Amino acid sequence: MEYRMMILGHFLVISLALNAGLLYKGYSNGKHKAQDIFSFNNECKNASLVTNRDAHIPKRTKASFSSSSSSSKALNEVIDLDHGDPTMYEKYWQQMGEKTTVVIPGWKFISYFSDVNKLCWFLETDFENAVIRLHKLVGNAVTEDRHIVVGTGSTQLFQAVLYAVSPTNASEPMNVVSAAPFYSSYPLITDFLKSGLYKWAGDARKFKKDKPYVELVTSPNNPDGLSREAVVNQNQGILIHDLAYYWPQYTSISSPANYDIMLFTVSKSTGHAGTRLGWALVKDKEIAKKMTEFIVLSTIGVSKESQLRAAKILQVLSDTHEYNGNFQESEPFFDYSYNLMARRWKQLRNAVNKSKLFSLPEFPHGKCAFSSRTFASQPAFAWLKCEGEIEDCESFLRDHKIITRSGKHFGESSKYVRISVLPRDEIFDQFTERLCSINYF
Amino acid sequence: MEYRMMILGHFLVISLALNAGLLYKGYSNGKHKAQDIFSFNNECKNASLVTNRDAHIPKRTKASFSSSSSSSKALNEVIDLDHGDPTMYEKYWQQMGEKTTVVIPGWKFISYFSDVNKLCWFLETDFENAVIRLHKLVGNAVTEDRHIVVGTGSTQLFQAVLYAVSPTNASEPMNVVSAAPFYSSYPLITDFLKSGLYKWAGDARKFKKDKPYVELVTSPNNPDGLSREAVVNQNQGILIHDLAYYWPQYTSISSPANYDIMLFTVSKSTGHAGTRLGWALVKDKEIAKKMTEFIVLSTIGVSKESQLRAAKILQVLSDTHEYNGNFQESEPFFDYSYNLMARRWKQLRNAVNKSKLFSLPEFPHGKCAFSSRTFASQPAFAWLKCEGEIEDCESFLRDHKIITRSGKHFGESSKYVRISVLPRDEIFDQFTERLCSINYF
Repeated sequence: MEYRMMILGHFLVISLALNAGLLYKGYSNGKHKAQDIFSFNNECKNASLVTNRDAHIPKRTKASFSSSSSSSKALNEVIDLDHGDPTMYEKYWQQMGEKTTVVIPGWKFISYFSDVNKLCWFLETDFENAVIRLHKLVGNAVTEDRHIVVGTGSTQLFQAVLYAVSPTNASEPMNVVSAAPFYSSYPLITDFLKSGLYKWAGDARKFKKDKPYVELVTSPNNPDGLSREAVVNQNQGILIHDLAYYWPQYTSISSPANYDIMLFTVSKSTGHAGTRLGWALVKDKEIAKKMTEFIVLSTIGVSKESQLRAAKILQVLSDTHEYNGNFQESEPFFDYSYNLMARRWKQLRNAVNKSKLFSLPEFPHGKCAFSSRTFASQPAFAWLKCEGEIEDCESFLRDHKIITRSGKHFGESSKYVRISVLPRDEIFDQFTERLCSINYF
Repeated sequence: MEYRMMILGHFLVISLALNAGLLYKGYSNGKHKAQDIFSFNNECKNASLVTNRDAHIPKRTKASFSSSSSSSKALNEVIDLDHGDPTMYEKYWQQMGEKTTVVIPGWKFISYFSDVNKLCWFLETDFENAVIRLHKLVGNAVTEDRHIVVGTGSTQLFQAVLYAVSPTNASEPMNVVSAAPFYSSYPLITDFLKSGLYKWAGDARKFKKDKPYVELVTSPNNPDGLSREAVVNQNQGILIHDLAYYWPQYTSISSPANYDIMLFTVSKSTGHAGTRLGWALVKDKEIAKKMTEFIVLSTIGVSKESQLRAAKILQVLSDTHEYNGNFQESEPFFDYSYNLMARRWKQLRNAVNKSKLFSLPEFPHGKCAFSSRTFASQPAFAWLKCEGEIEDCESFLRDHKIITRSGKHFGESSKYVRISVLPRDEIFDQFTERLCSINYF
């Protein structure tokens, strides 16, 4: 119990850090008390799913991942699905064994510089090549005639773009907008230093000023998973396309994205969030130069170790598709992750349908040019709506010890919450069991 | 020739990036033309130094590091000593062989989180322990009763402190000062986003406002190597101690530093600049929390790979001193690096004395509590003064194809330049030969 309290205390710290004190307002202050509304429903067990899912895992690794979900755990443990921590991917990379192990001698990569002949002089060539190869394989972005800028996650790259495109001598900060619901960190990141260069200006659909602006287009969108296009229709705008989720495990790849500024990250493509690594594909040389300048002033470049490891992982990922003959023991990465996401969304929709208190968005079917599958999007986040009288969905779920992020942080109604679909199997099973079992008495 | 032009072009880009367009204003525009003033002096050869230095290096690694300095190279090649790129350390770590090799399996360290029970929840425990052990070994900083915050280099940590200590509702930005000559990046980093929270307010010795301020105390100082204490004498000030160079290869360790906010970095302690890793020792819990918040908003944490590699390297570094019986083939790290710096400063002072155009600071002798040696500081940078009629020392040296950073970027006269003493042996030899040989005809 004391341990759980500590965990709760630290979720508080983390949430405060990420959400400027808005997200977490005390664990048991919601209007629905757990004892009033909680019941356990036997229809909600996920045992068969666990068995199916583990069928292809080598015996030696199975023990450490076996699901121990039980009614007592499902009832008592706090389930944190606030952040999109992509630990779901651990199992795949463990199956790959030593193929993706990176080995770095102590005397290598000491210098600040990777290649002084490159515009982005701290970009490792192996990482650059691995990125280009992966985009060509998947067909999700044009890399020809683009400058690659590496960043400490796409979070840093987003700020680098704002710095790069803001007029230096403007009388007021440039407006930054995105259509609601938008990624909850965008306003916080834009405004936390009270920059005189740029400021958050809210929902893009409501932006009517005749002034320079930056529009963030996240597609598929975080939090709701929908495909998007720019909505502000003016000629003074600069578009940033955040394509973190434009990968074939989440959505069908219709064609290579071909925008001026495109952001990607390993966190959501391969699952390596701890690596803190993203990349931008940038058409305009001067913007790419100024982004590089931002990253130099902000952190004097980007970890070489992260770049080396990501290069190895992206190379092996491409190998699992292109040289499948040499990788007979392992499923190609995007097949594995597509199938896992498909199972999770089926499991989640089952739970939602049984509970009757919630709803989820529906997605159109699309044919994926990469996999040739025709399917509806199965996003990294579920944008869950509390139906009926529940006005504060986050508090309601918190009373059931499910930590989510309220729709209000995304510029939307608090009837919505964002829920990560990327935790480890055991956590996801506990979550869907608990969600399914929630009923009003 | 074309290659050299490309290199020059890229130094331009890098310098622009680091110094907001101020540093590099065209290679041959200086008022002293190379052909007018250049001569080569045979007294300036460093051959004997090279031989002595390499005596202890195993044969198998010698080839890759043998000096090929020659009169033609010394005359023609551009020598860039603008940045403090610590490639000098490569040789030591190569001698250590596989002891510092880090191996990271592809499935590990996927999560954003290192330890949710820690205030700084993205700090790896192995790195934290290695930092504490090293400070205890060297005796250069108090770690008891301190929070450790890890950052993407001390550059990010400096910004995290500014964010953490700035009043949130102040009517104007807080003043940030440091006594001239100060690190040239401080004003750029403080002002590049035009933050409403803080602004650069120049030389601390000239700061007389009766307002809240932050004073940066860099000791030993970058660029001039002197030991420092705070100079503003008011009670509204917050001190940041940047102790990047408070290590026993550069200066005598008089006692453990015991300040409220202390910054360190692996770049200048072990030489691993490409790792982009620093740490802060912070007394106040709320400041440490808010620094963590900054790093979350800026980059959602810090590369796990960098932390793992740095942990390994710091552990082995401590081992070379504490378990020297098991490391008989290799010199303890701080003995090696102290001796190398001592040789370099002797070589540099010889060259300066022979040329008669330049001068260097003199440093008082101090007894080092770590090594028991009594010695004068031998800093990572040389703060070189052009004597006589030379007013623009940077341009003068650029005419001799030596790239340095002008004193004016450090809040000082352009008669000074800052020069890195940490390049590879070959570069340092070429540099001292060339410096020695510069004379007016």
